[in-house]
Amino acid sequence: MYRTHNCGELRMQHVGQEITLSGWVQNTNDLGYMMFLNLRDRYGITQLAFNEENTSKELFEKARTLGREFVIRIKGEVIERASKNDKIPTGSIEILVKGLDILNASRVPPFTIEDETDGGEDLRMKYRYLDIRRSPVQQSLIFRSHVAIESRKYLAGEGFIEVETPNLIKSTPEGARDFVVPSRMNPGQFYALPQSPQTFKQLLMVAGMDKYFQIVKCFRDEDLRADRQPEFTQIDCEMAFVTRDEVLRNFEGLTKYLFKTVCNIELADFPLMQYDDAMRRYGSDKPDTRFGMEFCELNDLAKNKGFVVFDNAELVVGICAEGQANGYSNKDLKNLTEWMQRPQIGAKGLVWVKVNADGTFKSTVGKFFSDEDIKEWAEKMNAKPGDLLLILSGEAEKTRKQLNELRLEMGRRMGLMKPGDFKPLWVVEFPLLEWDEEAGRFHAMHHPFTSPLPEDEEKMLGGDHETMKNLKANAYDLVINGVEIGGGSIRIHDRALQEKNFKLLGFTPEEAEAQFGFLLGAFEYGAPPHGGIAFGFDRICAVMRGQTSIRDFIAFPKNNMGRDVMIDAPSVIDEGQYEELYLRSTAEDEV
Amino acid sequence: MYRTHNCGELRMQHVGQEITLSGWVQNTNDLGYMMFLNLRDRYGITQLAFNEENTSKELFEKARTLGREFVIRIKGEVIERASKNDKIPTGSIEILVKGLDILNASRVPPFTIEDETDGGEDLRMKYRYLDIRRSPVQQSLIFRSHVAIESRKYLAGEGFIEVETPNLIKSTPEGARDFVVPSRMNPGQFYALPQSPQTFKQLLMVAGMDKYFQIVKCFRDEDLRADRQPEFTQIDCEMAFVTRDEVLRNFEGLTKYLFKTVCNIELADFPLMQYDDAMRRYGSDKPDTRFGMEFCELNDLAKNKGFVVFDNAELVVGICAEGQANGYSNKDLKNLTEWMQRPQIGAKGLVWVKVNADGTFKSTVGKFFSDEDIKEWAEKMNAKPGDLLLILSGEAEKTRKQLNELRLEMGRRMGLMKPGDFKPLWVVEFPLLEWDEEAGRFHAMHHPFTSPLPEDEEKMLGGDHETMKNLKANAYDLVINGVEIGGGSIRIHDRALQEKNFKLLGFTPEEAEAQFGFLLGAFEYGAPPHGGIAFGFDRICAVMRGQTSIRDFIAFPKNNMGRDVMIDAPSVIDEGQYEELYLRSTAEDEV
Repeated sequence: MYRTHNCGELRMQHVGQEITLSGWVQNTNDLGYMMFLNLRDRYGITQLAFNEENTSKELFEKARTLGREFVIRIKGEVIERASKNDKIPTGSIEILVKGLDILNASRVPPFTIEDETDGGEDLRMKYRYLDIRRSPVQQSLIFRSHVAIESRKYLAGEGFIEVETPNLIKSTPEGARDFVVPSRMNPGQFYALPQSPQTFKQLLMVAGMDKYFQIVKCFRDEDLRADRQPEFTQIDCEMAFVTRDEVLRNFEGLTKYLFKTVCNIELADFPLMQYDDAMRRYGSDKPDTRFGMEFCELNDLAKNKGFVVFDNAELVVGICAEGQANGYSNKDLKNLTEWMQRPQIGAKGLVWVKVNADGTFKSTVGKFFSDEDIKEWAEKMNAKPGDLLLILSGEAEKTRKQLNELRLEMGRRMGLMKPGDFKPLWVVEFPLLEWDEEAGRFHAMHHPFTSPLPEDEEKMLGGDHETMKNLKANAYDLVINGVEIGGGSIRIHDRALQEKNFKLLGFTPEEAEAQFGFLLGAFEYGAPPHGGIAFGFDRICAVMRGQTSIRDFIAFPKNNMGRDVMIDAPSVIDEGQYEELYLRSTAEDEV
Repeated sequence: MYRTHNCGELRMQHVGQEITLSGWVQNTNDLGYMMFLNLRDRYGITQLAFNEENTSKELFEKARTLGREFVIRIKGEVIERASKNDKIPTGSIEILVKGLDILNASRVPPFTIEDETDGGEDLRMKYRYLDIRRSPVQQSLIFRSHVAIESRKYLAGEGFIEVETPNLIKSTPEGARDFVVPSRMNPGQFYALPQSPQTFKQLLMVAGMDKYFQIVKCFRDEDLRADRQPEFTQIDCEMAFVTRDEVLRNFEGLTKYLFKTVCNIELADFPLMQYDDAMRRYGSDKPDTRFGMEFCELNDLAKNKGFVVFDNAELVVGICAEGQANGYSNKDLKNLTEWMQRPQIGAKGLVWVKVNADGTFKSTVGKFFSDEDIKEWAEKMNAKPGDLLLILSGEAEKTRKQLNELRLEMGRRMGLMKPGDFKPLWVVEFPLLEWDEEAGRFHAMHHPFTSPLPEDEEKMLGGDHETMKNLKANAYDLVINGVEIGGGSIRIHDRALQEKNFKLLGFTPEEAEAQFGFLLGAFEYGAPPHGGIAFGFDRICAVMRGQTSIRDFIAFPKNNMGRDVMIDAPSVIDEGQYEELYLRSTAEDEV
């Protein structure tokens, strides 16, 4: 037997007991006549004691050979500590060691196994099995496991059935790029790995499963931006015979349950915000509503006063940064302007106004606008003395996006994104379609299976181009603190409507049939009204823990080139594998 | 709103209530002046009533247009039925319909949506979304979901952490054939889909996760025999600082918990059987112990009596089929012999002995053996008058396998494989290595990471060829009713032992390093002793439900050519996809 207890459980009540522990050597402290050793496992740390009085010479010498991360088993007696450590749960006791087995030695690790390590990202990824020994990473993975089982308990309790959908499915050019898998038994043909189980969960609704869920791996072969992974996990759900509000109620319930059960946080009811309002008030479809600083449109006050920049702009819009007037020198504001002008944001410039304590104003546009004019702006923006107004202008959509970045940056600087403060909301009534001028066709804003709002269904079947542009989707996103946790929609369940949507999206009838004939066919055999949602599971774990990166919630993540640097994958395959798959590499031809 | 209740929940207590239901038209019974309709959803069936007295003419006419599998929503009043149906839970009430919406029409389904359908396998797979509407399939999927969540609850309760391991990993030629996934970002390189998370779960032990589990999809590109699927699901587990018996205790606990919670069946403690005993007594490493009919070896009694077939045989071995002497005519025995001689089994012949009521014998070998001789066999086999002895001879291993088939066949015929009777056992101490004469190297009987028994470790590092052949693995299988539910082992956690094993398995040091260098490296940084197990999840679901096929426990299975005939996958990909992946098809060159 390797242990009678783990390294986190011994307390004063165990004093006097003979126990066996196994674990890793965290560190040793050799005082000559006595030596202490911290033994670590997943459950905690226990102090081991060796001293000249009670420890045999042989055992003491053996203990002195131990290095960090050696794996050992010890037998000994639990004794009360002379000087207690109230920072760890086992801090009142230590083990007087009577027997020691070295189960495995360890080379010196390439970085320290501490909460704050000296290892860089690349090294930690190469030795991920050592990185996971560090408590922050280990606790993130344990947290994830906890969220997963609580999600399942909640959904199962609500009558959802977890159904595994296949991973070897069919490649469809629509949407993101598929990972494909050559089929040996079907020469020249490929499976695709699912980008989501979308069509399968819809078929499960046609199949009468009524309420489906799955915590499921999904795959996208996209160029990897920071914090994107080629494989990621979703909490995927679908319900039959539901309206939008029933879906929202269910998954608001799930979210509240998870925060309560896992983090002991009670969330208030989630407000609904229309997409158009979100864009107008925050310039984003995922507003961080932990703080206000809402957009204020100034077209009526700021245009046609002779300032050509504003006069030529489609939109003049600003935010009021409370109490920031004194904090920003001219140089600070120049730096902020340059920050906004970086290519990532691309603002042409930044107009600022300081509201002075005496009611006067200092601004970059003083020669174009009277204090009277600017007072009107300040009033519309609810500015008080000491506030700083930041104003952008230009093409409406672009300007809103830029101001969104500025609002978030100011929120960060002003400490308004409080950790532990969670502000969820539902964003609803997205546009159904986006017009792609270049391709001369629409894109689905959500995906091709999203239903328009009930009142827009007839318009969609019979409307003109302008009507199509203005169709609203019966779609919804859950946003928490500016992060999109997930989204979904009520789906189309009518063959004619689905065919019309495919047509708008540029599918010929033949293409629609070849790629989605099974779904169109299923709609002819009694498809019920249905809708669903998917949460980014890696994402919700990170947000709940107040973290911005999903990396530590994934046991074995890939780098930005899609590589697992630990196992060194992907890698070359041998000629026999190519032959069996009826493939030839052209990679060398390219070089 | 689509419904106030589902189709399975209305009872006498609801009589008088105005309700809304939605579901599928199961069938209608039109008596002219009145009409009944069974409305179905996942939860049950509710009878709807229309009659000339209470139903408007318009509504009645509309109801008459409904066909099977139409999706409808009705409003109405719950009333007591005149003639009750005690076969269904809602059988005391019916709904007097007052409003009817047709939510979706349905074409006539290609097969009947009934427990016993008229649809063949191929048709049901093509229209799997209709097949799943059938209660037996739907209930199998619900059962599976139930087993999954109970497995998770149990393992989480025991301190196991569910960790998701990656699906895009590294191809290794060892073992079964990998599915591979070309990497667009790494030209000429491929990921592999995991055949199991074996190395990752071992790394999680090195990482200090202590107890890991995952219900996880695995992939094998094998030629598909009946009831094999290219993607299948495992309950995958690993534990650090454990001995074999601790692993067995944990997973015996899981199995008992599942049978108790999901099926309300109490299982007795699982006996342990050594591999050698299982082979000797049953000719199989997965014996069905619901019945005895154990092998009886007759070498000492039957050889060297002048019957050349036995004299030349390595092994003479038989079973005693209780009370079957009278049931088998000479013709029946001839048929049975021919059944044994089919190529699938390949027996040369079958010796039979009938033990007559008067103590005499009738047999195929009467001219070679005296009644005295045969009496000795009968005594050794514990045969009573009326029993039938069935005896095979030949090369030992082959003969045992053949007799195993015969024993199982006789068990089936004699009704000894009782449904509802579950006889689990652990088979332990498998051989570590199998010698492959042709390849001139050993194969791993379990996998290359399996540890020998502790007492065999030193032999392995220093032994000769004969010693290697006789090494025992610290491996175990859980067998229930002749089905291998899963298996596992204590793993090697020492670099030198692992290198030795790779060498025995024919790896050069360079190959071992290229394929498993990350694991060998991990063993140098404090790898703890560890072991684990994996259960076939599809399999355990089928066994628990007393079914032999896993097909209905998989929502969207593939056929024997690896095809999903519903979505028609795999399929061709376009030229652009080939180019992006640096691949060219040679499938056409082959034609």
